[in-house]
Amino acid sequence: METNTIQGRITEFRGLMAERGIDAAIVPQADPHQGEYLAPHWQVRRWLSGFTGSAGDLVVCAESAALWTDSRYFLQAANQLEGSGIELMKDGLPDTPDIATYLCNVLPKGSTVGIDGMLFTREAADRLGAALASAGIKLVTTFDVIDRIWLDRPSLPSDPVYVHETKYAGEEARDKIAKILADAHSKGADAVFLSTLDDIAWTLNIRSNDVRHTPVATAFLYLSDGENTLLIDPAKLNDETRAYLASQGVKTADYADVKTFLGALAPAEKVLVDAGHTALELLALLGERAIEGGISAAARLKSVKNEIQLAGVRNAMLRDGVAMVRSLMEIERRVKEGVPTTELDVDSILHYYRSMGEGFTDASFGTIAGYGAHGAIVHYEATEASCATLNPNGLLLIDSGAQYLDGTTDITRTICLGTATDDERTDFTLVMKGHIALAQAIFPAGTRGAQLDALARQFLWKKGLSYLHGTGHGVGHFLSVHEGPHSIRLNYVDAPLLPGSITSNEPGLYRENIHGIRCENLVLCRHEMTTEFGEFLSFETLTLCPFDRSLFDTSIMTAEEIEWVNNYHATVRERLSPMLNDSERAWLEAHTAPLA
Amino acid sequence: METNTIQGRITEFRGLMAERGIDAAIVPQADPHQGEYLAPHWQVRRWLSGFTGSAGDLVVCAESAALWTDSRYFLQAANQLEGSGIELMKDGLPDTPDIATYLCNVLPKGSTVGIDGMLFTREAADRLGAALASAGIKLVTTFDVIDRIWLDRPSLPSDPVYVHETKYAGEEARDKIAKILADAHSKGADAVFLSTLDDIAWTLNIRSNDVRHTPVATAFLYLSDGENTLLIDPAKLNDETRAYLASQGVKTADYADVKTFLGALAPAEKVLVDAGHTALELLALLGERAIEGGISAAARLKSVKNEIQLAGVRNAMLRDGVAMVRSLMEIERRVKEGVPTTELDVDSILHYYRSMGEGFTDASFGTIAGYGAHGAIVHYEATEASCATLNPNGLLLIDSGAQYLDGTTDITRTICLGTATDDERTDFTLVMKGHIALAQAIFPAGTRGAQLDALARQFLWKKGLSYLHGTGHGVGHFLSVHEGPHSIRLNYVDAPLLPGSITSNEPGLYRENIHGIRCENLVLCRHEMTTEFGEFLSFETLTLCPFDRSLFDTSIMTAEEIEWVNNYHATVRERLSPMLNDSERAWLEAHTAPLA
Repeated sequence: METNTIQGRITEFRGLMAERGIDAAIVPQADPHQGEYLAPHWQVRRWLSGFTGSAGDLVVCAESAALWTDSRYFLQAANQLEGSGIELMKDGLPDTPDIATYLCNVLPKGSTVGIDGMLFTREAADRLGAALASAGIKLVTTFDVIDRIWLDRPSLPSDPVYVHETKYAGEEARDKIAKILADAHSKGADAVFLSTLDDIAWTLNIRSNDVRHTPVATAFLYLSDGENTLLIDPAKLNDETRAYLASQGVKTADYADVKTFLGALAPAEKVLVDAGHTALELLALLGERAIEGGISAAARLKSVKNEIQLAGVRNAMLRDGVAMVRSLMEIERRVKEGVPTTELDVDSILHYYRSMGEGFTDASFGTIAGYGAHGAIVHYEATEASCATLNPNGLLLIDSGAQYLDGTTDITRTICLGTATDDERTDFTLVMKGHIALAQAIFPAGTRGAQLDALARQFLWKKGLSYLHGTGHGVGHFLSVHEGPHSIRLNYVDAPLLPGSITSNEPGLYRENIHGIRCENLVLCRHEMTTEFGEFLSFETLTLCPFDRSLFDTSIMTAEEIEWVNNYHATVRERLSPMLNDSERAWLEAHTAPLA
Repeated sequence: METNTIQGRITEFRGLMAERGIDAAIVPQADPHQGEYLAPHWQVRRWLSGFTGSAGDLVVCAESAALWTDSRYFLQAANQLEGSGIELMKDGLPDTPDIATYLCNVLPKGSTVGIDGMLFTREAADRLGAALASAGIKLVTTFDVIDRIWLDRPSLPSDPVYVHETKYAGEEARDKIAKILADAHSKGADAVFLSTLDDIAWTLNIRSNDVRHTPVATAFLYLSDGENTLLIDPAKLNDETRAYLASQGVKTADYADVKTFLGALAPAEKVLVDAGHTALELLALLGERAIEGGISAAARLKSVKNEIQLAGVRNAMLRDGVAMVRSLMEIERRVKEGVPTTELDVDSILHYYRSMGEGFTDASFGTIAGYGAHGAIVHYEATEASCATLNPNGLLLIDSGAQYLDGTTDITRTICLGTATDDERTDFTLVMKGHIALAQAIFPAGTRGAQLDALARQFLWKKGLSYLHGTGHGVGHFLSVHEGPHSIRLNYVDAPLLPGSITSNEPGLYRENIHGIRCENLVLCRHEMTTEFGEFLSFETLTLCPFDRSLFDTSIMTAEEIEWVNNYHATVRERLSPMLNDSERAWLEAHTAPLA
């Protein structure tokens, strides 16, 4: 077989399509766990198309092929798809059809489209199926053939599982299981089936290295009064972890047997699932047993951190703040002294200082260090080819974070490498006014993020400015840096901000070909007061690192806003100083002095 | 038959239930047009229960009966239901089951519940049916027997239809019909069926007096390329209105024949409907012909006012502002001079001055004049029994509006009848800060009301205060004072604020047994600017009437907020002064002087 070129792979794939009577196949960026980031084993779309971006779906027809991806990847995809015969479909542009519309246009009536039912939720498959049906096209959901041509497909990650100790997690797995089952019983279910890797890792207090930057283990979890079963590759366990799981009342079974396992459940067993986070094929195996309960209790409980987790996060923030101060100092020194420093070097510097912190295991995502115009590319990731060298002028946007055993961090600072211009100061200050408004918000219990989003945008909007990303995402505890169910964004998400949940506060402003600004701290939602009007919540800022004082234009700030910055800087100084040496402390003193 | 007592009516009703094998019947506050306000003909729940409130559903079982209503009616319902044998169910309290849960509890398996399919949407009936089915209870949707016992039931309103002239409406009916059909064609439909009375009145530029305070005619409307049919009581038309309708390409048929009409449509005819605003029984008659298209184009187009409508509204605001100034002057004078004046007198005073305005036809809703503690009852409507007499102290909340041929108004002012206390000033100013923030908001095209709601609440929230009603509702043009699809409220409604739409801006604060505050202007959504970040919209305040200067506490206001109040008052003065006599002008000068 000729599968060392993309064209060869597509040709082989078409052969399998023809063999099965499939006229078009959709290969999504997805795994059976509805994860945002994928283990190499699940990078099928990448292998088949040659496109390496983190978002994009491939469609292969008998004669044509096309790949849908969004604006952050237009350039990269165009380069990587060149000569492959795969057409680039620019998602989000008004003239780009969606995949269903495209298929309805190119396929004759009576055609068959194939997908792998392990890589789609039922909702997505139903939507697709309905659209195709309207054009007389059939959808087959059992088209799973990639193993026959991807002969060197990476196996499932065999990295060992390890226990995330209770001194970090704050709660025993068995107690979490009891809560999840209590919720299931209240919904008339006997059992719960979980597919989402971070929910499973949280529930069992286990971690592994299957997905880059996110310490999860590939597995499914079945919880019931009778017995609990973790379906996982046996190679990932050793005597110690098996004993640990047994001590929490959890047996193990082979990950590869998940379909048999579900099919063999007693017909009367009622199993609570989140249909939006369960593969279509597994949901179908549960059949009448399934009770669809929306967002799982595990996801909801996971979002609320306990006191031990919060103590851990506060400690991790100290270490992360120290690493940030040292990194910013070094970047400042290098630029001043003319030491050649690139965007990639910024990542190395951050990694160097963070890795000195206790409990550090990894970055929590790929660092975004965007200098000048690169800062305006929202998901910019520097490469050897693109990477800019820092000069003593302009803005540098640094968005980075770390995984520590006691917490996950995510911080963005935008710093000026020379003397700030008026435009830079105005733009930065408008972003900070929104950051401050959100940081200071007080709101009734039950408030959802979409209701608060405008607080962070109002000052930009007044000037006809905006940013296209969300204002805040949930953050896990030594888990995914993007964690649901809540968020703070324009789009309505029906999940209230709960006391104990952690969210980012990251408004921004991106001027194409000029600069990008983003100011991000993590905030903890907490009880503020109870009055005759009910309970009110507020945010406590967790992140500890100065904002660039030279970028504030106090003439467009209220006294209250200036006071917030000065108080925040005083807190940063007070908390971090004891961990710094003299020169670092002097740097921090200067960088946290009250705004003039 | 003994139907002159409530108990007698219920007994007769139970007889008809037994005859049809119905174990429980639900009698909702509803008509076949999904209207908020009902013509007397549709006040079945009122006739059967004796409860006169505008919200409440009755459930009659063989042995028991119960009525669900919300907090604003708890007291009234308790009084009116006394001795009727009907139990009051306090909707919204944690221990109150909803109707479906109640029925599942009281009815044995195998029971049958009856509803009238003309008074429920399919969504409501499906939800109810599913809940009942889980307890083994059947739902019958054809239980419509009230005519057999309500022998003196008011007939459908026979008030004549009249034409709302193009000089007010700004667009010919035939042109609106063409737009609605163009939208239907874009959705693959041949025709459109409308049930909502204000959409029909708007589409055809007709009005009548069927519903109190809302100048609509009871009708259904069927639009198609072949022909358009208004289904209406022939008694409501005369030669002139028939000729007018014919000139716009609209035939008429009898309202009573709507079911025959829909049943007789060609089987291949595709009819666009808003299933959320169409009676279950009519939707069932359309059957396979129905294309469900969400919010109708008529509703969406109606919400965007044209330049002639807006010129009319601006003129109506001048007349309404003058009437408000004269009313406030008179209330102030009476209180000062000790002339006995009650809450009901306030309504009479407003009506007297408004009725002098050109084009006045009616109030746009029942006036809410709440003095002192009554102001804290959000939907308070004074009665002879409850009605308070004004004293020279405390707050008076006046929420009122008018129907003019060229526009609908809705305004709330809260005024102090003596010397304002610190608490009154603080509360009032916190409400006004929210009002001003919303009035000054600038936001991207596409923004939905739920995203802006927090702007009006943020200052109250910071103090642990809140209000439980929405911040803003859409307003019709010589139509319903509550008009969709957009609103500004905590709850997510997927309808963007469109340029040309009118919305109320009415934050409030209600302290039980003390006072109520609400500050309401109508605002027009308009284009503000287009930048590299897209189009931005803003609000123009339309209402012209001073706020009570004595209630502002400038020590907690920003310079920008004070400037907004002073600018607004200058505009009010400038626009209204030419229409006032010398003493009125002097009053307005004093009441619009810049804040100290």
